[in-house]
Amino acid sequence: MLTMQDALLALTRYWTDRGCMIMQPFNTEVGAGTLNPATVLRVLGPEPWRVAYVEPSVRPDDSRYGQNPNRLQTHTQFQVILKPDPGNAQELYLGSLEAIGIDTAAHDVRFVEDNWASPALGAWGLGWEVWLDGLEITQFTYFQQAGGQTLDTVSVEVTYGMERILMALQGVRHFSELTYAPGVSYGEVFGQSEYEMSRYYLDDADIDTVRRLYADYAAEARRMIDARLPVPAHSYVLKCSHAFNVLDSRGAVSTTERATSFAQMRGLSREVAALWRDRREELGHPLGVASPAPAAVPAPVGAPVTEPATLLFEIGTEELPAAEVPRTVAAVRAGLAERLGATRLTHGEIRVLGTPRRIVAVVDDVTPREPDVERVVRGPRASAAYDAAGAPTRAAVGFARGQGADPADLQVVTHRDVEHVALVRTEAGRDAVDVLAGLLGEVVAALRGERNMRWNDATLSFSRPVRWLVALLGETVVPVAVSSLAAGRTTRGHRRAGSEPIEVPGADGYPELLAAHAILLDPAARRDLVVEEAAKLTADIGGHIDADADGDVLTEVTNLVEYPRPLLGSFEDRFLELPTEILTTVMRKHQRYLPVRDAAGRLLPAFLAVADGTVDEALVRAGNEDVIRARFADAAFFYDADVKVPLETFRAGLAKLTFEQRLGSVADRADRVGALARGLGEAIGLAGADLATLDRAAALAKFDLATQMVIELSSLAGTMAREYARRAGEPEAVATALYEMELPRRAGGALPGTVPGALLALADRLDLLVGLFALDAAPTGSSDPFGLRRAALGVSAILTGQPRLAGLDLTDLLARAALLTPVPVGEQALAAAEAFIRGRYAQQLLERGVDHRLVGAVGPHTGAPARAEATLATLSTLLGDDGFAALAAALQRVRRIVPADAPAVVDGERLTEPAAARLLGVVTDLTARLAPAGAEADGAEPGPAAAGSTRGVPVPLDALVAAAGALPAAVDGFFDGLMVMDSDPAVRRARLGLLATIRDLTAGTLDWEALGTLATAGH
Amino acid sequence: MLTMQDALLALTRYWTDRGCMIMQPFNTEVGAGTLNPATVLRVLGPEPWRVAYVEPSVRPDDSRYGQNPNRLQTHTQFQVILKPDPGNAQELYLGSLEAIGIDTAAHDVRFVEDNWASPALGAWGLGWEVWLDGLEITQFTYFQQAGGQTLDTVSVEVTYGMERILMALQGVRHFSELTYAPGVSYGEVFGQSEYEMSRYYLDDADIDTVRRLYADYAAEARRMIDARLPVPAHSYVLKCSHAFNVLDSRGAVSTTERATSFAQMRGLSREVAALWRDRREELGHPLGVASPAPAAVPAPVGAPVTEPATLLFEIGTEELPAAEVPRTVAAVRAGLAERLGATRLTHGEIRVLGTPRRIVAVVDDVTPREPDVERVVRGPRASAAYDAAGAPTRAAVGFARGQGADPADLQVVTHRDVEHVALVRTEAGRDAVDVLAGLLGEVVAALRGERNMRWNDATLSFSRPVRWLVALLGETVVPVAVSSLAAGRTTRGHRRAGSEPIEVPGADGYPELLAAHAILLDPAARRDLVVEEAAKLTADIGGHIDADADGDVLTEVTNLVEYPRPLLGSFEDRFLELPTEILTTVMRKHQRYLPVRDAAGRLLPAFLAVADGTVDEALVRAGNEDVIRARFADAAFFYDADVKVPLETFRAGLAKLTFEQRLGSVADRADRVGALARGLGEAIGLAGADLATLDRAAALAKFDLATQMVIELSSLAGTMAREYARRAGEPEAVATALYEMELPRRAGGALPGTVPGALLALADRLDLLVGLFALDAAPTGSSDPFGLRRAALGVSAILTGQPRLAGLDLTDLLARAALLTPVPVGEQALAAAEAFIRGRYAQQLLERGVDHRLVGAVGPHTGAPARAEATLATLSTLLGDDGFAALAAALQRVRRIVPADAPAVVDGERLTEPAAARLLGVVTDLTARLAPAGAEADGAEPGPAAAGSTRGVPVPLDALVAAAGALPAAVDGFFDGLMVMDSDPAVRRARLGLLATIRDLTAGTLDWEALGTLATAGH
Repeated sequence: MLTMQDALLALTRYWTDRGCMIMQPFNTEVGAGTLNPATVLRVLGPEPWRVAYVEPSVRPDDSRYGQNPNRLQTHTQFQVILKPDPGNAQELYLGSLEAIGIDTAAHDVRFVEDNWASPALGAWGLGWEVWLDGLEITQFTYFQQAGGQTLDTVSVEVTYGMERILMALQGVRHFSELTYAPGVSYGEVFGQSEYEMSRYYLDDADIDTVRRLYADYAAEARRMIDARLPVPAHSYVLKCSHAFNVLDSRGAVSTTERATSFAQMRGLSREVAALWRDRREELGHPLGVASPAPAAVPAPVGAPVTEPATLLFEIGTEELPAAEVPRTVAAVRAGLAERLGATRLTHGEIRVLGTPRRIVAVVDDVTPREPDVERVVRGPRASAAYDAAGAPTRAAVGFARGQGADPADLQVVTHRDVEHVALVRTEAGRDAVDVLAGLLGEVVAALRGERNMRWNDATLSFSRPVRWLVALLGETVVPVAVSSLAAGRTTRGHRRAGSEPIEVPGADGYPELLAAHAILLDPAARRDLVVEEAAKLTADIGGHIDADADGDVLTEVTNLVEYPRPLLGSFEDRFLELPTEILTTVMRKHQRYLPVRDAAGRLLPAFLAVADGTVDEALVRAGNEDVIRARFADAAFFYDADVKVPLETFRAGLAKLTFEQRLGSVADRADRVGALARGLGEAIGLAGADLATLDRAAALAKFDLATQMVIELSSLAGTMAREYARRAGEPEAVATALYEMELPRRAGGALPGTVPGALLALADRLDLLVGLFALDAAPTGSSDPFGLRRAALGVSAILTGQPRLAGLDLTDLLARAALLTPVPVGEQALAAAEAFIRGRYAQQLLERGVDHRLVGAVGPHTGAPARAEATLATLSTLLGDDGFAALAAALQRVRRIVPADAPAVVDGERLTEPAAARLLGVVTDLTARLAPAGAEADGAEPGPAAAGSTRGVPVPLDALVAAAGALPAAVDGFFDGLMVMDSDPAVRRARLGLLATIRDLTAGTLDWEALGTLATAGH
Repeated sequence: MLTMQDALLALTRYWTDRGCMIMQPFNTEVGAGTLNPATVLRVLGPEPWRVAYVEPSVRPDDSRYGQNPNRLQTHTQFQVILKPDPGNAQELYLGSLEAIGIDTAAHDVRFVEDNWASPALGAWGLGWEVWLDGLEITQFTYFQQAGGQTLDTVSVEVTYGMERILMALQGVRHFSELTYAPGVSYGEVFGQSEYEMSRYYLDDADIDTVRRLYADYAAEARRMIDARLPVPAHSYVLKCSHAFNVLDSRGAVSTTERATSFAQMRGLSREVAALWRDRREELGHPLGVASPAPAAVPAPVGAPVTEPATLLFEIGTEELPAAEVPRTVAAVRAGLAERLGATRLTHGEIRVLGTPRRIVAVVDDVTPREPDVERVVRGPRASAAYDAAGAPTRAAVGFARGQGADPADLQVVTHRDVEHVALVRTEAGRDAVDVLAGLLGEVVAALRGERNMRWNDATLSFSRPVRWLVALLGETVVPVAVSSLAAGRTTRGHRRAGSEPIEVPGADGYPELLAAHAILLDPAARRDLVVEEAAKLTADIGGHIDADADGDVLTEVTNLVEYPRPLLGSFEDRFLELPTEILTTVMRKHQRYLPVRDAAGRLLPAFLAVADGTVDEALVRAGNEDVIRARFADAAFFYDADVKVPLETFRAGLAKLTFEQRLGSVADRADRVGALARGLGEAIGLAGADLATLDRAAALAKFDLATQMVIELSSLAGTMAREYARRAGEPEAVATALYEMELPRRAGGALPGTVPGALLALADRLDLLVGLFALDAAPTGSSDPFGLRRAALGVSAILTGQPRLAGLDLTDLLARAALLTPVPVGEQALAAAEAFIRGRYAQQLLERGVDHRLVGAVGPHTGAPARAEATLATLSTLLGDDGFAALAAALQRVRRIVPADAPAVVDGERLTEPAAARLLGVVTDLTARLAPAGAEADGAEPGPAAAGSTRGVPVPLDALVAAAGALPAAVDGFFDGLMVMDSDPAVRRARLGLLATIRDLTAGTLDWEALGTLATAGH
């Protein structure tokens, strides 16, 4: 058996054999090996650095008295830094797994997207968590920024979680059972320390003392920065950080303190980083300066291609995030089509397919060469080009010389019936390989993902490093060279330590060649294979997977593998006693497993995992089963612990969780949400059982965010609230309301079904939006840390989905929320929030496929989306209707004529001409007929002004259409019979006043201009 | 080349292969690997523990900005703990040297006594520093106590100093030049950190902040102890310790603070240790309980010995301290002789010899068996034993039965002319092997050194572990078994990794067998070999060693080796520019090298090292040369640095050095010494140049204790004061006084030659003695941490050696010192100090070979040793003298008769008998003749009372003898002619009063009773 210390030694040996220096753990408490100066300082600047070390990492918050099977206040990291990126870090890493006895050919080793960011360190990177048969064993990151500085020289960080790896290798279920050294268990060596340090961190540390330590450390760090000594300064920043963590684990960090401390530590870290970089420069970079990989030399041009041939272009990458696979496939397809289209090459079909490790384009029948073309450069008119003697004039000579030609080469061409002298040149077609070499390089250079990174390449930037290119036209290598990459004919098979490269003889037969190496290029084929195999495997146990409900997981696993190998695993029946949502959440979110259900839809004690390529199925299945068992055991542990705690205790615990510095704790926010929801309930006249439900649910709002289960599995927020509320004997309605207040979870997701739930959900989102807009924290670009876009859509969806809330108006809702917000909310912020929500809603309508003119037309209603939806529904029935077409046309005509500032004053005395009088009559009648509707809706005084006010409720479209039958003709008659712009100003004012009355009366019903010609198109 | 990280890896691998666990460096700053809980806590209690780890050890005081070649604020220790002692830790250690490429057969690897104690940790142990060709590379300790607790289960601690080892292996002169990893130097990796952390520790740490940190850490440690959590408590004690070290390196620790902090940390450490032990017990000792090595099974008795044969008994040990070799040889010889004497075995000569690794006894002609003896048990008188019929009486039967015998076996024996019945039994002699087995075991069990240790043996206790026994009578193994050791016939040769054991065929030829393995048992032979070889080697360069001046070194090296191999090494001429004392001190004290001088006594650039056994001479010479070169370079560095600093600055710096908590700093003490010396100078009427010299020297007293040189080489105190004073332009007399104030350095050492020097030296010692006696800190047993015994001898020697001081009286001197002492000095303490000094002086006289009766006789003068010496000298001339014999006899006769309380009152009226009158006349005459001498000496009023007072100056012996010619006859006449005890009380009183006057008149001159029969022996 490999002991833990064997493993540490083996890794040390492995990495030192590969040029890493050994460093020692840092001599002050650190939360991760990353914080050791051997990482966080050394990744800065241009000096090369290769290092490996053990780091016992102290996380006071993970203290569990040594009881939790996986969680320790001190766990052991093995940390490797390779700087610069050596270009084969993944392969080196796989070799290290072999070095500790993991057969990477038999196991399912996977690189699953996981990006790392530490705002406190001003640091981030892109990379993966590495899975061993479903178990996360390593964090693998390409550092992009540290200490607030963008890193020109990229470091690869590999962090092994030693306890987890060893638990898997030794097959033990609790860290204390690990064999640490021959005959000695981990618990025997470290058990007492786990217990005692947990006691210290959770129960016994003196808060005042540690707070004072924090302050002293920070002051000392500050002084050392001022003294330009980054090394001691960094040490004190780490001490700060540990002191803060201790305070936090003691539950002693107030909202203000947390924010202040983070800002302080972040600031210090950044200064330390900048200072370190400067000092290294002053010292002349003692370890030298790393340079990026040199520019590639293109392959020599191979045998000439003479016949139309197939183009194969493979871009080999490190594992792309699953979502990037289809996105990149599409981008390459588009980029290739566009660029080929800009050449004179002809070609057949362009097919682009992809896996996480390669994007492959195949283009049929590419001509070997562009055709030659003639190019005519026109000069002066022929009449001015030759003198009487037929000799070229100065103009002609000048033109020819300017083109670098002999005047004798000038020809005469006719352009728009005029003769000109011209130079006619034959431009030879280029060889396809040359053309392709350039454009394929451009395709690579243009690759961009959602988030992009740098590696050891001077210019490229993409989701993940591009490591190889295959470019073949027929059997000839296309000499693509882009930055440090040169294309060839060598591709790679499945990952595993020491796997051999594969030579590709020619473009034709390439997909088959890969298939022979068990790589399926077509995502659809991979998905089908999963579904098909899953059906077979699950049938044996009378189950099935739900490819619709779990479509997202299915899509993800399809793009996490090059060849899906579904495996059916099982777990103990007893875990089925846990709430289903817990099980499915763990399976889907954490493990990307597909749950297996019986015919009645009940979970079976089984799961479908999808491994990659050819693995030892029994081994991989067993590994995955261990992982899910451990995960479920954790969940059961949390569940059992949680159900022992009264809900009110959790609710009170929310005060410990900061929401946002100025907006207070999560408890503060839950209080506001509850108050706002109760206010809204009052506004809609909620009473009786519903009111009681709302009150109780409001009092408990968000309590589950303090439960261990939700702290572990945040996506179960709401779900666990319902579960625990039920277990605690709360009324079902309260449990439901607590569940529903987290709905919808995403655009198009399920909506609250009950009024209390809907009110809480609405209030939750309003509080969030108003608070953040008040802080001027509207989302920008791709950054939306508080999920405001989703919240905005949620507001609209809730208002649409619950009839009792249909009458609520956004402006009013936001104003109510603003009254409860603990920071001042300016008018501008409120307006911006409203515009944001309305805009998101409109955007969503467009995405639903609603014609942009219709979306525009219902614009006045987006503040009350239920009304907008009703109006849209009405509108859709009216679009073919002649009467409506006439009405729309008339109203648009009115609006075109009437200046925006013309007041709606009716001066009957001056509207005596028949056409005017008729229109006045129609308008007067219409106003009278429409008034009650408005009055009914909001209780305001009836009358045209009220009805037309943007602050009141507009005339519903159906009511208007029903009442306005006579209006189009009267309007037409008015315009046909009269000049609005009468010479008598009073008459003119009266006529405009009448038209303005029509305008205002119908203004809120639709945005008639936005409707454009849609209503009248058929006419 | 072996890089530093290769070495760390190789050691890790080596020790884990031998059952050690890997631990990590501790995650807070520690000064040594010992402080890591993996050592300091784990050595407590009975649990086994084998561990190896790297420990970057932080010593703020060693900060040198990375400039000093050997000194770093963080150096790298490799730490190994073997618990329990495996019995072969040295062999394992040698194997580890092989593992990092050190050929232990070619190099000179030595275990040189070096004991470890950390009063701050309440810890100590015995062991060695390990030398590699003269370079200390490892500390090797058997822990005896930790956290104030005696350790039942002994741990072996091995601490490698990695930078030093690697510097030697790589042959570099500055740590920064070490190759840390392939292509990367130590300086490149750690240089910046060395500089910056040095800046922090020496210049930039904020004192107030660090002082506050110290207090907070201590408080937190205290709280954790109270919470019974030793693990976090220990961590905080370490943080305390580091904070204290930082304050110290910043020069910010006041005397009070130092003492308080040490007491506090010591107290906390002890509580942590006790708590840890208790907690482990409560936890049921998770790692099990180690047991000592089992009792040995004696060897089966071999072939019977039938003829007188040689006994060989070898006690194999780990390297004894050099001084223990002769001491143990003597003890074994005595023990063996005594025990053999108590048996009925006869034997020839007993020879005992020894090396550091074995004590060997050879006894010639041991008889194979004790003779049989008869034993007679006497019973009742024969007359009572048989009745008339000749049958045994009840008394006889009872006696016989009581002896377990048949009444028929009773015989009749005659005892003191009376017949008794008796039982006569023949007691068979025992076989020699049986007898010897028992007594040799006792010899081993009785072994004791100056300081003794426990190892993994249930009962033995000695200087160092006893590892094997060879016991042969002729060719037969004597089955000695003592505790875990059983004797056999297997001995060992020279140490080196993997050396083979040696079989000893028989006792005869054993010395030759060992000689064949290059082991010289006879210390005298070893010494001769060194001297002889040294003469040859040094002759080549025109030099010689001084076997007298360097006798101590010679004796030590003789007992540091089993076979001396002198090697002549050289160093650069330039080092000869350093003061000679520096060079010789480094050579002798640090390296045990013999300096080489030319005919004129000037140092040559060479040294004589003595290696052990068969080594690669060129290699070992080169190694030793490297070491001395580095040492001299260090010394030159210190010297150059010191001479740049004004003497007053050093003198002021003494305030930073604590002497003793209650007695203040070294500066305080130097002030007192100066003041006391000046007072004494006044008392003896010092004036003029001498007074000026004394004043100046007193002002600078002890300044050199603050110099780098003396901090490094404390034995150069005084020497460097003279050197630096000269360099600073002080008068030669001042330089000399500063030098002389440290004299004598040891019993019999050179004494101050000048009066200012003598006064300072005297004052120095008086201050020390009075201060420590005032604190009730008189030496006890072997503990004399302040060197009070040496100081006491120094006082006597100085008073003897300097005529101007001869008249000073100890009582008065101590009283003067007491006036300056900052703590109250009770009468009792002063009396104890005086008794101590006088006692030591008397003891020294005995050691000088003075007859104990003479020593007793001069007892009254030991408070003024110059007088004692003069008296002794006089006495020695008188011992054959009849007149003196008569005088002594007369005075002893007087003293026998006169009661101690009889008053010396002369009542002439009642002393009228001729014999009485004659004696009265002689006494009156004598008193008159002696009075002026006393008056002259101390200016007191003349008269018998004054002369005889113990507080005055007694009558000098020569004066008494010269004046008392008539006294013996008069005394004899008085006794012969009169009864002292006359019936008339007044007469009786008068006669006693006259005798008492004689008694008192001569009392201070000698202790006449103590003289005993010495004066009269020949008569």
